[in-house]
Amino acid sequence: MEWLVKINIQLKESILDPQGQAVQAGLNALGYDNVSELNVGKYMELKISDLEDKEQVDKQVDEMCQRLLANPVIEDYRYSIEEMA
Amino acid sequence: MEWLVKINIQLKESILDPQGQAVQAGLNALGYDNVSELNVGKYMELKISDLEDKEQVDKQVDEMCQRLLANPVIEDYRYSIEEMA
Repeated sequence: MEWLVKINIQLKESILDPQGQAVQAGLNALGYDNVSELNVGKYMELKISDLEDKEQVDKQVDEMCQRLLANPVIEDYRYSIEEMA
Repeated sequence: MEWLVKINIQLKESILDPQGQAVQAGLNALGYDNVSELNVGKYMELKISDLEDKEQVDKQVDEMCQRLLANPVIEDYRYSIEEMA
């Protein structure tokens, strides 16, 4: 069985986001003054095979986020898991 | 009215993704051999105010992606728009 995993990783709210501020300043400079609270984060898509049930996949994805994909000290992560046909 | 916009930006399939390959190699090195086709992209969240209907917001977001947020030559983008209470 194969699973499609989509992961969003973002800085925690309390953490300064200079990249987000720079992008927002760029948009404002282009005339989009009605844009605010812009945050930039990471988006990952990956496939996981060889696991039969969703709970096992969930456990593995959470572990991978904790160990490598996200920095739990300054980042939050969310993910979705879809079974592939 | 205020709108919450979520944008995912990813490299087109035909474009080499060295960052994705590096992250996948890291996961494989940690023992997660069942992970494949890992792609890394950008995730952005922002708020848009002063627009009354969703079509106007959609038009603006698409324009911002085309002009600044994504590189249409090598990247694809998807976004969702939610009305904020």
